[in-house]
Amino acid sequence: MTILMALPAPEPGFEDRVRDSFVRQRLMETIGARLVRVVADEVEIELPFRDDLTQQHGFLHAGVVTSVLDSAAGFAAYTRMPADAGVLSVEFKVNLLAPARGERLRVVGRTVRSGRSVSVVAADAFAVQNGEETHVAMLVGTMMTVRGRAGIAG
Amino acid sequence: MTILMALPAPEPGFEDRVRDSFVRQRLMETIGARLVRVVADEVEIELPFRDDLTQQHGFLHAGVVTSVLDSAAGFAAYTRMPADAGVLSVEFKVNLLAPARGERLRVVGRTVRSGRSVSVVAADAFAVQNGEETHVAMLVGTMMTVRGRAGIAG
Amino acid sequence: MTILMALPAPEPGFEDRVRDSFVRQRLMETIGARLVRVVADEVEIELPFRDDLTQQHGFLHAGVVTSVLDSAAGFAAYTRMPADAGVLSVEFKVNLLAPARGERLRVVGRTVRSGRSVSVVAADAFAVQNGEETHVAMLVGTMMTVRGRAGIAG
Amino acid sequence: MTILMALPAPEPGFEDRVRDSFVRQRLMETIGARLVRVVADEVEIELPFRDDLTQQHGFLHAGVVTSVLDSAAGFAAYTRMPADAGVLSVEFKVNLLAPARGERLRVVGRTVRSGRSVSVVAADAFAVQNGEETHVAMLVGTMMTVRGRAGIAG
Repeated sequence: MTILMALPAPEPGFEDRVRDSFVRQRLMETIGARLVRVVADEVEIELPFRDDLTQQHGFLHAGVVTSVLDSAAGFAAYTRMPADAGVLSVEFKVNLLAPARGERLRVVGRTVRSGRSVSVVAADAFAVQNGEETHVAMLVGTMMTVRGRAGIAG
Repeated sequence: MTILMALPAPEPGFEDRVRDSFVRQRLMETIGARLVRVVADEVEIELPFRDDLTQQHGFLHAGVVTSVLDSAAGFAAYTRMPADAGVLSVEFKVNLLAPARGERLRVVGRTVRSGRSVSVVAADAFAVQNGEETHVAMLVGTMMTVRGRAGIAG
Repeated sequence: MTILMALPAPEPGFEDRVRDSFVRQRLMETIGARLVRVVADEVEIELPFRDDLTQQHGFLHAGVVTSVLDSAAGFAAYTRMPADAGVLSVEFKVNLLAPARGERLRVVGRTVRSGRSVSVVAADAFAVQNGEETHVAMLVGTMMTVRGRAGIAG
Repeated sequence: MTILMALPAPEPGFEDRVRDSFVRQRLMETIGARLVRVVADEVEIELPFRDDLTQQHGFLHAGVVTSVLDSAAGFAAYTRMPADAGVLSVEFKVNLLAPARGERLRVVGRTVRSGRSVSVVAADAFAVQNGEETHVAMLVGTMMTVRGRAGIAG
């Protein structure tokens, strides 16, 4: 039997807080990302493929893939944070598994371990084409719960 | 005395190859990044701050910072690659050290170890404001030399 | 539907090759690790807790946990490598999720993506106590297939 | 001009606290590591090569190299922590640059950024042979300052 770390219960209204924060992430609008799903510990974001987001071979740039991975993972951790807290990325590692091409990118972020000040998160990116998905990238990272610091909420 | 790994000599024309490849990275134009400097094993890129590239607290999104770190590091490795090769990111880790705000981001990528198929790279990002720089992020990663694969050159 | 990357079929005898290589990892004997299970893409290793492997608070040292994570992950990748190849760790990231204490550590390594020269691997470590398991650490890393280099086989 | 993050001044007695904590890391004695140098933000450890610490090709196992990298980096962060605090590794990434062989390993850990609860650290490992050094591995990681938790001091 595997014991999961005890997670704090999500505070009511976490879906709305994630949606509000997502809207304030101006980059998400700039690249055309859409928030698809928000549940406790899991957030899904989609990004339609666009030519102006590519690297030199015509695939989505690793930085664009990372942007969506980081947002999905950060918001997953944010679902467990106190209502007055903000979330900041401390660090992450991204592995690129296959070229990110196709019609769109589907990204699922999740909480691995939720602590008082630091959370461990993971996220996977899948390229979708003709109804089939290819696993193109994965992230493992650390998020920080920030409280009482000017300008850091949501 | 520290012995550096023997690096292959850069093939003539590497500056032009980096500049050509940078132009083909459509994302760099989309976010407004400029290629500033290209020498063997070191590439510098600048990114003026823009409100539409931010996360929810008004700082540059970690994915944008990563985009520039990854490009600078990848092109640094590319300066040592054969003229007919392409460069692909295998993986990277990014640590966010301070909020990325200010007038612009200055990013320096460099080769740490250049191997036949795999290179180790690093990059640092500095936020520039009023002539002062703050170290805001660092990347350590792995780049792959790709040859003879359709669509992967530059 | 998710498409997994096509993996090369394991060459016959891979279990024996992993067991031979494990025995030659002198460190595994030194710390008392046991090879428990070898199947294609998955290798399990156990490490009984020992006081002489601890850090300053009496938990297993992160480096010991990493030793077992790295071996399990590397051998998982090795199950897919050609019979005359060797495996080398290129890089890995380890997240420590909870103190590593208890009766023993159970570690499962697996292949995430197996390429010609480079493989992506992952591994999880669980602390076992009174029949219960706690997830204490996770690794994501990159392994290299090495052929024709003197002294690198197995 | 580059602005470094303001670090808290080291509290008196930090060298002794590091030396005490090092002695309590039983693993360091088990593998034969020696604490060589402790100054604010920098700690150096040496490890004589031993056959019983190797992987299958006769090089020092990546987990042994990581053990010393992690200890050196963690103690570097510890030099800036309050006298009643303990240090725990949150996560690290290690890149293996060259085979770890020779007479001994020299490892230097340093603080990159020291925060109230979380510090960013780095470390480099050099293999020493015949008076020459080869850079064989590098670590970048995150350490946590722990206070008031039972059993976590030093």
